[in-house]
Amino acid sequence: MTGSATFDITVSLDGYVAAPGASLEDPLGVGGEQLHEWAFSAMSWREAHGLEGGEAGADADVVQEHLDAIGAVIMGRKMYSGGEGPWEDDPRARGWWGDDPPFHMPVFVLTHHAREPLEMQGGTTFHFVTDGIEAALEQARAAAGEKDVHVAGGAEAIQQYLRAGLIDAFQVHQVPLLLGGGRRLFDELGSAPPQVQIARVIASPNVTHLRYRVVR
Amino acid sequence: MTGSATFDITVSLDGYVAAPGASLEDPLGVGGEQLHEWAFSAMSWREAHGLEGGEAGADADVVQEHLDAIGAVIMGRKMYSGGEGPWEDDPRARGWWGDDPPFHMPVFVLTHHAREPLEMQGGTTFHFVTDGIEAALEQARAAAGEKDVHVAGGAEAIQQYLRAGLIDAFQVHQVPLLLGGGRRLFDELGSAPPQVQIARVIASPNVTHLRYRVVR
Repeated sequence: MTGSATFDITVSLDGYVAAPGASLEDPLGVGGEQLHEWAFSAMSWREAHGLEGGEAGADADVVQEHLDAIGAVIMGRKMYSGGEGPWEDDPRARGWWGDDPPFHMPVFVLTHHAREPLEMQGGTTFHFVTDGIEAALEQARAAAGEKDVHVAGGAEAIQQYLRAGLIDAFQVHQVPLLLGGGRRLFDELGSAPPQVQIARVIASPNVTHLRYRVVR
Repeated sequence: MTGSATFDITVSLDGYVAAPGASLEDPLGVGGEQLHEWAFSAMSWREAHGLEGGEAGADADVVQEHLDAIGAVIMGRKMYSGGEGPWEDDPRARGWWGDDPPFHMPVFVLTHHAREPLEMQGGTTFHFVTDGIEAALEQARAAAGEKDVHVAGGAEAIQQYLRAGLIDAFQVHQVPLLLGGGRRLFDELGSAPPQVQIARVIASPNVTHLRYRVVR
C-alpha cells in the first residue's frame, strides 16, 4: 500500500502563492512573507525549521499532521535553487536552506540537468530527476513507503501534477490577504481540471485550512 | 446609522465567478451554473426566487441571513442585461429576470446611459445611475436605511468598489470546483488592495462560507 500524492500550500485570498516582484533576493515577492506568518508562529513549523518557541493550537496541529503524513517531497528546480540551466552556473546549487534543510526526508527535484544525489545534514537528501514528473512521483512513492508524497511547489510543478491527474488530495491554507498580483496557484489547469470535493475545513483566526480530495 | 457596503458572491476554488465562454445565452459561461448548485438547492434561495422546495440547513441559513441583512443592491450594466450602449438597442433592457425579479428591493444599475427608474413586480425597482460608483453607493445607502448595501456583481463592479476602498465587509461562498478559466473575482485590484481579516467561516459539505471584514 502506498500513500497519496498531495500538495499542501499557503495561498492568499486572491489565490497567489507569491507576491509580485519575486527575485533571487525575494523569492516570495515583495511582501510575500506575509503569506506564511501563520506558519512562522506555529510551534510545529518552528521545530521543523530548528527554531524555538511558537504557539500550539489548531494551526500548529495542522502543520504537525502534514509533517507526520509525508515521507518524500517533490519540488521544481526554481523552488530548489531559484536558478536554471547547468548546475555549475547556479549560485544556489545546494538549495536555499543551508547545510541542514527543513525537510528531513528524501526530496526529488525536477530538473533538466542530471546530477548525483546530494546528502545534507538532518536526513534530507536531494535527488535530481531528469525524466519527468511521473518518474519523480514513482521514485518519491518508493521512498515514501506507506506515507504520502508532498509536491511542495512551486505553483508550476503543482499545476503540472494537477493537469496530469496525478494528485489524490491537497490542502490549501487560505490567508486573509489580498496581494493584488504575483504567482497564482490555480492557473494553467487546462480545459478539463480535476473534479474535487471538500474533505475538511479547519477555521482559525488567521488562516482557513481547506482540504480537498480529487474525485476519479 | 447606516449599514455596511458589502458583497456576497460564489467563487470556484480557483477564484472564478463565471466559467469560460460567457455569452448572452450562457451568462455564467459553459458549466458556470455548477457554481450555484449549492444555492439552487437551498430553501431560502428558492423561496426568494419564487420556487418551492429545497433544503434547510447551514447553507440555507447563510442565504437567509444575507437576504435579511441587505436593503439595496448595486450591480453593473452587464449583470443587469448583458448588454451595453443605448437602452433602445438592448434586447434585455428590462433585465434578465422577467417581470418579478428576485431582489424585492431597490436595485441601482451602474450605466453610462440615463433612464427613468423601472418599477417591476414584487418590490424590485431598478434605478439607473450614470454618475459613478460613489453616487450609486450614496443612493443605495439612502434606500437601504439601516440595512446593508449589496454590490451584487459582476466581478468588475466589485473590483471597482474594492479599489476605491468602499467595501466594508464581504462573504465568498467557495465551492469545490476548478473551472480552469473564466472571470476571476479578485483581479485588477491594483498595487494596494484592501487589508482584510477573517470574520467567520461556516463549513458545509458542498461549500465553504468565508466572511471577511476590511480593516481601515
